[in-house]
Amino acid sequence: MSDLRERAEALDSADELAGLRDLFVLDDTVYLDGNSLGALPRHVPARMQDVITREWGALRIRSWDESGWWTAPERIGDRIAPLVGAAAGQIVVGDSTSVNVFKAVVAASRLAAGGRDEILVDASTFPTDGYLAQSAARMTGHRIVPVAPADVPAALGPRTAVVLLNHVDYRTGRLHDLPGLTAAVRGAGALAVWDLCHSAGALPVGLDAHGVDLAVGCTYKYLNGGPGAPAYLYVAERHQAAFDSPLPGWTSHADPFGMTPGYVPAEGSVRGRVGTPDILSMLALEASLDVWEGVGVEAVRAKSLALTDFFLECVAAYVPEGRVTPVTPAAHAERGSQVSLRCVDADETEPVMRELVARGVVGDLRRPDVLRFGFTPLYVSFADAERAARILAEVLEA
Amino acid sequence: MSDLRERAEALDSADELAGLRDLFVLDDTVYLDGNSLGALPRHVPARMQDVITREWGALRIRSWDESGWWTAPERIGDRIAPLVGAAAGQIVVGDSTSVNVFKAVVAASRLAAGGRDEILVDASTFPTDGYLAQSAARMTGHRIVPVAPADVPAALGPRTAVVLLNHVDYRTGRLHDLPGLTAAVRGAGALAVWDLCHSAGALPVGLDAHGVDLAVGCTYKYLNGGPGAPAYLYVAERHQAAFDSPLPGWTSHADPFGMTPGYVPAEGSVRGRVGTPDILSMLALEASLDVWEGVGVEAVRAKSLALTDFFLECVAAYVPEGRVTPVTPAAHAERGSQVSLRCVDADETEPVMRELVARGVVGDLRRPDVLRFGFTPLYVSFADAERAARILAEVLEA
Repeated sequence: MSDLRERAEALDSADELAGLRDLFVLDDTVYLDGNSLGALPRHVPARMQDVITREWGALRIRSWDESGWWTAPERIGDRIAPLVGAAAGQIVVGDSTSVNVFKAVVAASRLAAGGRDEILVDASTFPTDGYLAQSAARMTGHRIVPVAPADVPAALGPRTAVVLLNHVDYRTGRLHDLPGLTAAVRGAGALAVWDLCHSAGALPVGLDAHGVDLAVGCTYKYLNGGPGAPAYLYVAERHQAAFDSPLPGWTSHADPFGMTPGYVPAEGSVRGRVGTPDILSMLALEASLDVWEGVGVEAVRAKSLALTDFFLECVAAYVPEGRVTPVTPAAHAERGSQVSLRCVDADETEPVMRELVARGVVGDLRRPDVLRFGFTPLYVSFADAERAARILAEVLEA
Repeated sequence: MSDLRERAEALDSADELAGLRDLFVLDDTVYLDGNSLGALPRHVPARMQDVITREWGALRIRSWDESGWWTAPERIGDRIAPLVGAAAGQIVVGDSTSVNVFKAVVAASRLAAGGRDEILVDASTFPTDGYLAQSAARMTGHRIVPVAPADVPAALGPRTAVVLLNHVDYRTGRLHDLPGLTAAVRGAGALAVWDLCHSAGALPVGLDAHGVDLAVGCTYKYLNGGPGAPAYLYVAERHQAAFDSPLPGWTSHADPFGMTPGYVPAEGSVRGRVGTPDILSMLALEASLDVWEGVGVEAVRAKSLALTDFFLECVAAYVPEGRVTPVTPAAHAERGSQVSLRCVDADETEPVMRELVARGVVGDLRRPDVLRFGFTPLYVSFADAERAARILAEVLEA
C-alpha cells in the first residue's frame, strides 16, 4: 500500500465525523459532486412516505395546521440559522435562489439611502445572480457595476446602494472575505447581500457576527435538501421592519386568511415569503437537516480543509506534471470546500470528467477547462480523496 | 331511503367517471375541499419512493439528465396543456402562482403597446394576484385600476395595457366569461392575463381557442399535484419571442451551462423558467397527472355541473329556510366547480364549518360568511353531495 493510502486510512480512523457517513445513502463511487447535489440522507425516504401518505393522503387539508405545513418556511429557516451564524427569526425558506436574489437585491436597493444608484455585482458571480441583479436594477432605476470581489473596497462610493457577492466562487472555489468586505460595504453606507450557495453547510458564515445585511442560499448542495430544494432568504433583524419585498404574496401578509385587497406585510422573517410553500420539497429539506444534530460547523470546516489539503497533496503526488493546475487557492482563508483543477489542455476537460465518472469518481466540470471536485465533510472520506486523485492520474496517463 | 338518496344512487350508477374515484386515496369523509388541496392519487407514493431512493439516492447528479429532471418544467407543462386547451410548447411549470402572476403581469405590460399605463385587475381577485399586480405596476410605472370583471369592457380604453382576471372567483365560485372578456380586452389593444387556479382541471378553458395572451394557475387544487405543488405559466406562442421576464434566471438562458455573464433568453416556453426546478414537488405533480389518462375535460365539466346542480337541490330540500343563501350563480355558464353558501347569520359560519368537519364533511370557509364546497368530479360522488347537504341541514338544525 502506498504511503498516501496509509495516510488516508489513518486520517479516516482519526476523523470524529467519520460516523456521519452512515447517515447517507452512498455506494462505492467517490461522490465529489455534493456541491451540486447533496447525497440522500438515509431516513428521508421513510419520512417522505409519511408526509405523502399520512399528511397529504389521510389528513389532506388539515395538515396545513395539524402537520405544521403553514409554518414550515420560518420553522425550517430557524433550523438553517445556526449553520450560517444567524439568530432565530431572520431566515425564511421558499422559492429558488434566483427568486430570492431578486427579492434581496430589490429590497436592499429600497433600504439603501436615497441618491445611491449603483449596484455592485461580483464580476465572476454564478450567472443567475448577475441576471437577476440586472433585472432588479432595470426595475428600480439603478445601474449595475461588475467588480471583482477583491476590488470592491476601491469601487465603493457615495453612489453605491447595494453590493451582491458570492461567499465562495462556484467555479474556482475561492472563499471571499465576508467579514472584511461586509465591513467595507457597510462603512461606505451601502448594503451587503451575500450568496451562500457554496458555503452554507461547509464552513462558518457568521451572518450576525459580521453584520451582513441580507443573504440568500440554496439547500441542495452542502445542506443535502434534495434536487431543487427550496432556497432561503436572510434579512437581518435591523432591516426587517423596512423590508419592502418586490414579491408581496399572500403568505407574507399580516393576516393571510383575512384575504383583504390591501397588502399589509407581516412582521419578521415571514415577510420574505411569497406564495403557497412547496411542502413536499420543503419537508424533505427539513428531514435532511436532522443529520446536523450535534454537529458543529467548526468541526466540519476543519475536516473540509484537511480533506482538500490532502486531495491537493495526492494530486501533486500522482498526477503527471503539467496536466492540471489547481485554481482553488492554497491559503485556507481563501478556500471553500471544493478543489477546482484547470486542464492545461482545455480539450481534455470533458473527456477526462466523462472517464472519471465511468471509473466511479463523480465530479463535474465548468466550461471551458475546469474540473470541479466538491468535498462534503459529512460523508466524504480521506480514502475518497486519495482514490479520486489516483484515478484522475490514471485517466490522464491513459 | 329518501328520494334524494335514491336519486344519488342512480346518478352514481350512471356516472361514467365514477371509477376514477378508485385512483385516489379516500376514506369515509366527504371531501369537498379539493379546490383547496386535491386528494392523493394512489400511485403517487410509490412513484415518489422511486424518485427519492433511486433517482436522488442512487443516481444523484446523473438524474438531471438520465431521469429527465432538467426538462421536467416544460415536459409537465405539455401534460397540463391539453387540460386547459393549449397546444404543446406554451406552458412551463415552476415557482408559485404568486411568482408567476408577477412574471405574467410584468411581461404583459412590456408586450403592450407604448403609452398604455393602466393595468386593470379583477376587484374581487384572490388577494395575492392583486398584491403582485400592484408590485408589478409600481416597478414598471403603471397604475392599477380595480374593476369588477363584468365592468371590464366599459373600463377598457387607449390607456389599458393589461387586464388580470380570475377565471373562477375563489370566494363565490362565479365563472367569468373568458372568451368574451378576452375578445374585449384584445379588441381594445390590451393583453389578457388569466388566473386559472379555480378552473383548470374542472372545466374547459380553451386558452388557444379564445386567444388568451398569458395565463397562470396552480396545480394543487383540481390537478391534485400535492401541497404547494409548483404552478405554471402559459405564454401564447405569438408572444414568446418578445416575452421579457422580470425573473431571468439561469435555467431560462439559451445556453444555461455556458454560464456566460450576459443573459440570452431561450426560445419557447423555457423562457418562463427561473431557477433550479423543485424536483420532488414537480415529479409528484407529474405522477398525479396520470389520473387524466383517457379523461376528457368536457366529461368532467358535465359531471361537475350535475354534481353542483344536485347539491344545490339537496340544500334547497334539506336546509331550513333562511339560514344559507347560495352565492354561486345558478346559471351553468356562470358557475365554476364549487358551491358557496352564505350564512345569513355570519357568526354561524365558523362553528358550522367546524361541526361539519367533525361530522365528516370537509369544506372550508371564506370570512366573514361564506361556506365553500368544492366538487372535484374525478372523485366526488352524488352520494357525497347528498350526504353533505343532509349533514349541513342537521348541523344548522342542531
